[in-house]
Amino acid sequence: MPANRQFLIDHLPKGKLGPDVFTLAEGPMPSPKDGEVLLRTRYISLDAANRAWMWGATYRAALSAGQVMAGGALAEVVESRDPGFAPGDFVFADTGWQDYAALPAKHLQKLGTATPITYLMSVYGIAGLTAYFGLLECGRPKAGETVVVSAAAGSVGMFVGQIAKIKGCRTVGIAGGADKCAFLTSKLGYDAAVDYKAGDTRRALRAACPDGIDVYFDNVGGDILEACLANMKNYGRIACCGAVSQYDAPAPHGPRGVPGLIVTKRLNLRGFVVMDFEDRYDTALADLKSWVESGKLKVYEDIIDGFENLPAALIGLLAGENIGKRMVKVV
Amino acid sequence: MPANRQFLIDHLPKGKLGPDVFTLAEGPMPSPKDGEVLLRTRYISLDAANRAWMWGATYRAALSAGQVMAGGALAEVVESRDPGFAPGDFVFADTGWQDYAALPAKHLQKLGTATPITYLMSVYGIAGLTAYFGLLECGRPKAGETVVVSAAAGSVGMFVGQIAKIKGCRTVGIAGGADKCAFLTSKLGYDAAVDYKAGDTRRALRAACPDGIDVYFDNVGGDILEACLANMKNYGRIACCGAVSQYDAPAPHGPRGVPGLIVTKRLNLRGFVVMDFEDRYDTALADLKSWVESGKLKVYEDIIDGFENLPAALIGLLAGENIGKRMVKVV
Repeated sequence: MPANRQFLIDHLPKGKLGPDVFTLAEGPMPSPKDGEVLLRTRYISLDAANRAWMWGATYRAALSAGQVMAGGALAEVVESRDPGFAPGDFVFADTGWQDYAALPAKHLQKLGTATPITYLMSVYGIAGLTAYFGLLECGRPKAGETVVVSAAAGSVGMFVGQIAKIKGCRTVGIAGGADKCAFLTSKLGYDAAVDYKAGDTRRALRAACPDGIDVYFDNVGGDILEACLANMKNYGRIACCGAVSQYDAPAPHGPRGVPGLIVTKRLNLRGFVVMDFEDRYDTALADLKSWVESGKLKVYEDIIDGFENLPAALIGLLAGENIGKRMVKVV
Repeated sequence: MPANRQFLIDHLPKGKLGPDVFTLAEGPMPSPKDGEVLLRTRYISLDAANRAWMWGATYRAALSAGQVMAGGALAEVVESRDPGFAPGDFVFADTGWQDYAALPAKHLQKLGTATPITYLMSVYGIAGLTAYFGLLECGRPKAGETVVVSAAAGSVGMFVGQIAKIKGCRTVGIAGGADKCAFLTSKLGYDAAVDYKAGDTRRALRAACPDGIDVYFDNVGGDILEACLANMKNYGRIACCGAVSQYDAPAPHGPRGVPGLIVTKRLNLRGFVVMDFEDRYDTALADLKSWVESGKLKVYEDIIDGFENLPAALIGLLAGENIGKRMVKVV
C-alpha cells in the first residue's frame, strides 16, 4: 500500500509564515466509505488565501494546529464508492496537503478535460473564474474605461488584465519589481505597469492613469488600496478580491480615505468570493475557453515539482515570487 | 438700504473648529444682474459637510480664507431679474452665511410650500432626501432585515431609522449619550439604541444585533464604522453617507477590516451624494409627504435664533449637540 504523505500544521504562525509551521508526516491511508471517493492529489494549488485561513474563520472554518494543512488540489479519483464517479475522473477539491484523501462524492463536481490538464486549476479553475466574475460582475468595466489590477502578474491578476483588455478597456497592472512589470506589458498586454517597490505608488498611478481609475481590482489591500482610492474617478468601482498584503502581517489599521473618499467620489466597493457565482460557472467557462482557444487569453503557470516543496512554495508566493498560477506537482 | 451681514472665513482651521475661524463683517448689498435673483436668507442649514469643505475639494470646490462661509439656506426671492422667479418664491441655495446673495436663476429651483416652512429644509430638503436615497438605493433593505444607523438622532439619521421602520426593518440607532439614546427609542421608534460614549461599541452592537447587521447607514466613519464592519452579516450593504468623526480631526488611518472583512463577508459599500438622485426627487418627496401626513414620519428640528449664532451652531453640531435638523433662523 502506498504511503500517504501529509503536511501537518505544527502551530499557527503569529507573524510571517515560516517553514517551522509545517511538519511532514506519514498519515494513514484513507479508506472511502459508501458515497465517498478516494482521491489522489496530482497538483496542489498555492493561494494567498491559504495563509488567511490561519487567522480565523473566513468563508471557511479556521485552520488549527494538528490538522492536515488545507488546500485545494486537482485530484484524480482512484477508487469510487459512489455511482457518479469512476477511477480516472478529475475533480478539484480541498484535499489538503496530502497524497490521498477520501471525500464525500456529493460535494464534488467532475471536471471536464483540458490540455494541459493543469488548465483545470488555472484558467478554468478558481483563478480564472475569480478574475472573470470579480472583474465583470463587481468591477463592471465599460469599453474605454481604465482598469487597474494589483498583484497583476499573479494567478488571478494575470487574467483580470487580459479580460479587461478583451472588453476594450485600458489596463494598468501593479506588481513588484521591474521583471514582473516588463512581463505585464510585454506578455499580458497591459498598457502600463506600476512597480510598487519603486517608490511612490500613488504618484506613479497618477502618471499611469492621468484621467483616474474607473475600476480597481484589488488583490492586496493596504497601501496599494490607499493609493488607488486616491486616484479613483467619481463613480468608480472597486472589486475587493483579496488582501494579500495583510495575510502575513496584518496592519493595525485600514487605508486612509475610508470612508471619506468613498463618499465624495461615490465609489462602490464590493467584496466577493468566487463560489457566490457557482450557478454561472458554465457561462464563464465557455467564455474563457473561447478566449484561450482564439489566443486572446494567455495562460502562465508556475509549476513546482515535488510534494516536499509545498511549504517553500507557499512562503515564496506570499513574498511575491511567482509569475502566473503557482502549483506543486505531486505526481 | 438694509445691511448685509456676512461671516467670512478668517483662516482655514488645522484642527478642531473654533470661533476664531469666522469673522463677522458687513458686506456690500448684492445687486442682481440680468438672469439673477436677489435672495434673502431666512434659515441657514448647519451640516457636518460644512466642516469637510474646509479640508479640500470634495463634491464641491474647497473653501478658502477671505471668502464668505459657504452653506445652504432656505431663502426668499426679494428681487428677480429672471422671468421664472418672483418676489416671495422660496428656494434652497448655497447663499453662504450672509443676509443677501444674488445668484443665477438657472441654478435655482423653486420650492413648493410646507407647513412649517422649515420642513423644506429638513424632511423635504437635503436631509430627508439623503436619508431616503441613501437607505433605499444604497442600503436596499428588505423587510425583516436589521438596519443600523449612526448619528441616528441627527438630521439625516432621524429619518433613516424611521424610513427603515416603515419598510418593515428592525432598526438600531447609534448616538452619543443616554438622552439621545432614549430619544431614539421613545420618539423615533428605533428598536434598540447603542450609546457609543458608553464604552465598547462593537460589543454593544453585537448585543443589539445578535444576528448581525444587514444594512449599515454610515454617517460617521472611524471607529463606529470599524465596529459595524465587525458585526456585518454576509452580503451586507453599507451606505456611505458621511464621515463626521473625521471632519474635525481626521484619523491617520482608516478602519480595520478594510478590505479583509469586505471580501470575506462579501460586503457592498456604496458612497453617494444626494444630488446624484436629483432626477428622482419628485418621487421621493411624494413618499416623504405621504409619510409625514399620515404621522408615520416624525420631524424634529433644532432651530437656533439669530444670525450671530452661526459659528457656535456649527461648532456645537460637530460636537454632537443637536437632536434633529439644526438650522439658524436669520429672519
